[in-house]
Amino acid sequence: MSDPRETGTAFLPKFDSAGLVTAVVTDRATGCVLMVAHMNADAIAATRASGEATFFSRSRGRLWKKGETSGNVLRVVEMRVDCDQDALWVIADPAGPACHTGAPSCFYRRIGDGGLERID
Amino acid sequence: MSDPRETGTAFLPKFDSAGLVTAVVTDRATGCVLMVAHMNADAIAATRASGEATFFSRSRGRLWKKGETSGNVLRVVEMRVDCDQDALWVIADPAGPACHTGAPSCFYRRIGDGGLERID
Repeated sequence: MSDPRETGTAFLPKFDSAGLVTAVVTDRATGCVLMVAHMNADAIAATRASGEATFFSRSRGRLWKKGETSGNVLRVVEMRVDCDQDALWVIADPAGPACHTGAPSCFYRRIGDGGLERID
Repeated sequence: MSDPRETGTAFLPKFDSAGLVTAVVTDRATGCVLMVAHMNADAIAATRASGEATFFSRSRGRLWKKGETSGNVLRVVEMRVDCDQDALWVIADPAGPACHTGAPSCFYRRIGDGGLERID
């Protein structure tokens, strides 16, 4: 019953049919979830090699280093993988607002009974 | 240029082709990412109505309340949505270990240079 992917020490990402895993980035200092994006094998390798979070952009169909245009890179402190290795948790120090809207986090709205409520 | 999905107060989840959005659950007390799963419209509605995190299980093809068997439910404190509304952040109080392996979080391994390192 023991699944080596769950219990072992080998990093064996379980990519979906598009070759991607989900990556959740949190801010080391605040604990806030900053963004959720996707990584393919190349994005994981680039992130580990550079220490700056790099994703695979599904809309653009290419690797995309967060902050490559804005300068708001995410400096990786630590990466963790979940039990079945289809999701990554990236703990990072953000160089600036993580969201393209200028908000510190992409999650700038709470879901309330009457709709969304801005929280920053 | 202003996208009402990004700037507005209407909750309009952007479901993928399978009818799902990504849901990231963190522990209110520790800030840890506990798990990453998926919700469809029914799972979102069930979560909001019950106050306990409910997901759509892709492997079982049905709604799945976290803890329905183990008792380790995730009591929802707050839900947030990201800029393009294809991901949810669920802040929760876990009733027990979030991972089916018994670990407090599904993210119990750090990605190190030599492989995965257990952290709990």
